[in-house]
Amino acid sequence: MKTQNQTSIRVYKATGFIGEYQKLIRNTVIPYQYSVLCDNAPDTEKSHVVQNFINAAKAVRGEDVGDGFYGMVFQDSDAAKWIEAAAYSLSLMPDKELESTVDGLIDIIAEAQDNDGYLNTYFTIKDKDKRWKNLLEGHELYCSGHMMEAACAYFEATGKRKLLDVMEKNTEHIYKHFIAEKNEGFPGHPEVELALMKMYHTTKNEKCLELARHFVNIRGCDTEFYKKESLKRDWTVWGNNPEDTDYQQSSAPVRAQNVATGHAVRAVYLYTGMADLASQTNDKELFDACRRLWESITRRRMYITGGIGSTVIGEAFSVDFDLPNDTAYAETCASIGLIFFASRMLENEIDGEYADVMERAFYNTVLAGMQLDGKRFFYVNPLESIPGISGCTATHWHTLTQRPKWYTCACCPPNVARLISSFGKYAYSENSDTAFCHLYASGEVKFENGIAFSCETQYPYDFTVTYKILCGGKIAVRIPAWSKEYKLTLNGESVDESPENGYVTVSAENGDVIVLILDDAPRFVYASPKIPELTGCVAVERGPLVYCFEGADNDGDVLSLSIPRNADLNVGEFNEEIGAVTITVNALRTTHCDGLYTYETPDAAQYTARAVPYYTWGNRGENQMRVWMTRG
Amino acid sequence: MKTQNQTSIRVYKATGFIGEYQKLIRNTVIPYQYSVLCDNAPDTEKSHVVQNFINAAKAVRGEDVGDGFYGMVFQDSDAAKWIEAAAYSLSLMPDKELESTVDGLIDIIAEAQDNDGYLNTYFTIKDKDKRWKNLLEGHELYCSGHMMEAACAYFEATGKRKLLDVMEKNTEHIYKHFIAEKNEGFPGHPEVELALMKMYHTTKNEKCLELARHFVNIRGCDTEFYKKESLKRDWTVWGNNPEDTDYQQSSAPVRAQNVATGHAVRAVYLYTGMADLASQTNDKELFDACRRLWESITRRRMYITGGIGSTVIGEAFSVDFDLPNDTAYAETCASIGLIFFASRMLENEIDGEYADVMERAFYNTVLAGMQLDGKRFFYVNPLESIPGISGCTATHWHTLTQRPKWYTCACCPPNVARLISSFGKYAYSENSDTAFCHLYASGEVKFENGIAFSCETQYPYDFTVTYKILCGGKIAVRIPAWSKEYKLTLNGESVDESPENGYVTVSAENGDVIVLILDDAPRFVYASPKIPELTGCVAVERGPLVYCFEGADNDGDVLSLSIPRNADLNVGEFNEEIGAVTITVNALRTTHCDGLYTYETPDAAQYTARAVPYYTWGNRGENQMRVWMTRG
Repeated sequence: MKTQNQTSIRVYKATGFIGEYQKLIRNTVIPYQYSVLCDNAPDTEKSHVVQNFINAAKAVRGEDVGDGFYGMVFQDSDAAKWIEAAAYSLSLMPDKELESTVDGLIDIIAEAQDNDGYLNTYFTIKDKDKRWKNLLEGHELYCSGHMMEAACAYFEATGKRKLLDVMEKNTEHIYKHFIAEKNEGFPGHPEVELALMKMYHTTKNEKCLELARHFVNIRGCDTEFYKKESLKRDWTVWGNNPEDTDYQQSSAPVRAQNVATGHAVRAVYLYTGMADLASQTNDKELFDACRRLWESITRRRMYITGGIGSTVIGEAFSVDFDLPNDTAYAETCASIGLIFFASRMLENEIDGEYADVMERAFYNTVLAGMQLDGKRFFYVNPLESIPGISGCTATHWHTLTQRPKWYTCACCPPNVARLISSFGKYAYSENSDTAFCHLYASGEVKFENGIAFSCETQYPYDFTVTYKILCGGKIAVRIPAWSKEYKLTLNGESVDESPENGYVTVSAENGDVIVLILDDAPRFVYASPKIPELTGCVAVERGPLVYCFEGADNDGDVLSLSIPRNADLNVGEFNEEIGAVTITVNALRTTHCDGLYTYETPDAAQYTARAVPYYTWGNRGENQMRVWMTRG
Repeated sequence: MKTQNQTSIRVYKATGFIGEYQKLIRNTVIPYQYSVLCDNAPDTEKSHVVQNFINAAKAVRGEDVGDGFYGMVFQDSDAAKWIEAAAYSLSLMPDKELESTVDGLIDIIAEAQDNDGYLNTYFTIKDKDKRWKNLLEGHELYCSGHMMEAACAYFEATGKRKLLDVMEKNTEHIYKHFIAEKNEGFPGHPEVELALMKMYHTTKNEKCLELARHFVNIRGCDTEFYKKESLKRDWTVWGNNPEDTDYQQSSAPVRAQNVATGHAVRAVYLYTGMADLASQTNDKELFDACRRLWESITRRRMYITGGIGSTVIGEAFSVDFDLPNDTAYAETCASIGLIFFASRMLENEIDGEYADVMERAFYNTVLAGMQLDGKRFFYVNPLESIPGISGCTATHWHTLTQRPKWYTCACCPPNVARLISSFGKYAYSENSDTAFCHLYASGEVKFENGIAFSCETQYPYDFTVTYKILCGGKIAVRIPAWSKEYKLTLNGESVDESPENGYVTVSAENGDVIVLILDDAPRFVYASPKIPELTGCVAVERGPLVYCFEGADNDGDVLSLSIPRNADLNVGEFNEEIGAVTITVNALRTTHCDGLYTYETPDAAQYTARAVPYYTWGNRGENQMRVWMTRG
């Protein structure tokens, strides 16, 4: 069973938990991030993004801008992701002033495009002669890809074509370089593949599809491409090793790849493009590769939080079952990319497994990436944080105990903003006669196939989801794997069909009411003994939320807590400060010993331990945090 | 209570467990290592050590040797440590052929000494003008220090002065440079301090004492010394950061230091020199600093195996309680240095705590550093090894699952050889009327104070130690902290005095027999909950031995084993292959689940798990290994 691509959801208005997050993005994150792009945010690292475009425009006009570029080689993408987020937000909540701000930024960006369609401030300002000579590190296709996504989103939100025209012209430039002129190469940081697919969905321009297919198919065919490329130039951006083909997802043609390797964000962006292409072109061989890579990630290389890329060294996948809690990288962007991948897999085949992972990554790693007030962000999302060690040592420098404001490499904050603002694209999909409900969120949705309904729920803290059908049709409702029990009714009558691939399909007419009641019991989770880090450990979940234990709720010390085998989990009070339902468990508190080791069996006293949702951690000052607790 | 320095034990002959190890060193390690030094060992990385000395001699004579140096900047020290090991071995087992080989090497080394007393092949061959200009990285004082130790040992073993004369001349050179000519600086890699103290003990040359005191006292007084030094030159050896004073143990004068930081081997070598100087000069302030640093290591930064320096990054101490099992560095040499430090602390004050640590480090990390056949060596001694992860990832590249033959940086193998060959220096010490028995080993010992006895024991696999007094006096016998119960008799009569600072002193006459029976029960060990890595874990010890669980004894899978709270430990059979007594425990074997995580409480079946001494791990092919087991 296949569904259409994401652009098909034309109307989506969220309220409730997701709606509040979308308002936070709109009212706090988007204005703050814009001020960063313009270097107007106080106490924040310089961004220079807008100024880079202004300077590039001057360079295009032949003016001398000297050392007019500042930032990372991919600095442009911050602007692109911000526009994309603003576009989605505008489609939810139209606003003249924000739209005018975006229009102004688009004008500046358009000016920075070279006459031949090339668009990249780094190379335009620094050295035009270096264009397309360092695909390994130059991020030109990456930046183009993000601007394509922004162009599609803004066109969809406003109907305005200016940025879309810019990016069609840019696509022509890329097409000319790589297809017409047959220049070799594929992007060091995949992204353009999925973006070209979006361009194709939006514009139906066949060159976009052809280019996407080209970049997917050529990748890894010449495993020495980056090596040869590097020998042709006397400069690098970061000194990346051009021979590390695993790191570059180019050790084999993508259709022959079996294992998710290398830089995690790059990997899942690539797989997203592959899956979209496979779905669009009914490419079974390509889908099979996607499926193998999906299984490599989700069955052997993924944290319980949906975090991926467990090692800081290269922000990369490690080997199977190497999932350390305390030194985890688990970049926010990587989980966002995993959600992209999952959503494109759902376009290939409806299977609740994809939505389960999407939900896990969203409610845990992605939401944890942002402070509850929307003002600070984590790149890195460890599953254990111990002040004094985390953020302090040579092996834990990256696992900060508190979210910082903005990074020089600011990929995660705007990525969170664009994902939350486009939640509806992931929550729903459709085919000609069916609406698929992958995620649960209050709001209204109208599908292109004509089906429309409102959804009411206090999810993820209440587990009753009520669909009021406004325009009838087949409604496929996901039953999450975590819900041991559930109840589904149509107008009060039980729907007894078993789920097929994780979904129960209900034929509903106008005015019908579908009610799904999911399991609200907190539950323990155990890990495979193949994961060395997690032997003898237990975690707590409720609904889609992974819980964690913080010092703030446990007398400052979670390390000495353990959870006995017969422990009960109970839903605790609502914590106003973090806006979350807590869970209590009758744990044991082990007494401390002098020094490091003892021959005395440690005493353990009864202790009611309190857990909070993982996404809320680190919002109450620096303190200990653990997802996986000791059993015993 | 103080004891005299190490050189006072004039006669020591070991049999039994230690004696066998000393024979292995003599028959296998020393010949093999000599062949490496001479580049005669097949399938082994080039050493070039002897050739470096030959080439340096030519350079001293003014001959052009071009690019005649190969190896690390401290390559000379391999020869020094080998001579030292050979010397100790000769004192145990005289042998004309080996002695003649050492004499030959000493002749070559003597030729390489410059006329002014300078001795270092790297700078002599490469660039004389760079002498003493890079104390941070140049290792000149380090290499001199090791050669001083070799000179003292060889003089002690054979009475031959040639190398001692060379090193007295070298000491004069160093004295002239640093004292007479008042050149600033202190060694980047401490070692010369402890070596100068050995030179002083051997030669009574006051300049040695003065130099040792100078290097100890000047260290850290100018925290910017290395920075200033680096600004005066346009070259580095490795690009070390001259401003990382914590790493260089120079963030404050040593008397003001409280925390063991930086490169672990350097740290404990420094502290050894400090403790020796403190003892020699009755320097209470310096001893107090040693004591604080001792506590920093042994109460907050030491593995149960006596391993120290938990992070590979810089081979260094991490922060308190950061003691990861799987990514441990725990360099063999660092534990050897810790034994040096402990032995010098025992010269300051008799306290069983020092000997307990010395024994822990020796029987676990140090012995684990060498394959049972003496042919391969670990630098790195992790407490968990999981094939597929260990040695495979960017964070575990250093935790090899099998001992390699020889390293380019070959510090550990000869260090193991010299330590084992001089075991008696650590097992015993004395003052004017007492012989102190710190460690237990079969053999004969004759003290300078006239006391003499034979010792019979099958330690560490049997716990009866019989001292037959050959020449009477006060015998202070250590009661280890790990021995919950013990029995001490003199001629069959119980000695009921309580231990004082870990020792019971018995006045014995010629012909008396003292029998010590220590606790032979295997025991569980628990860790402080301040160590995040070890919460919910338990380890097994018996006598001085830490045990571990290997796949070889446990159906290939130790990860799914856990040890319930009520488990019994039993002494198992003797394993012929590894020559060790095993321990069995009634454990649980958890069933594996599909994928990574499960909501089903895992089943656990009874399983008799077998543990072997940690020092024997990795001798039966690649397999899983764990010291700290999950409690169940």
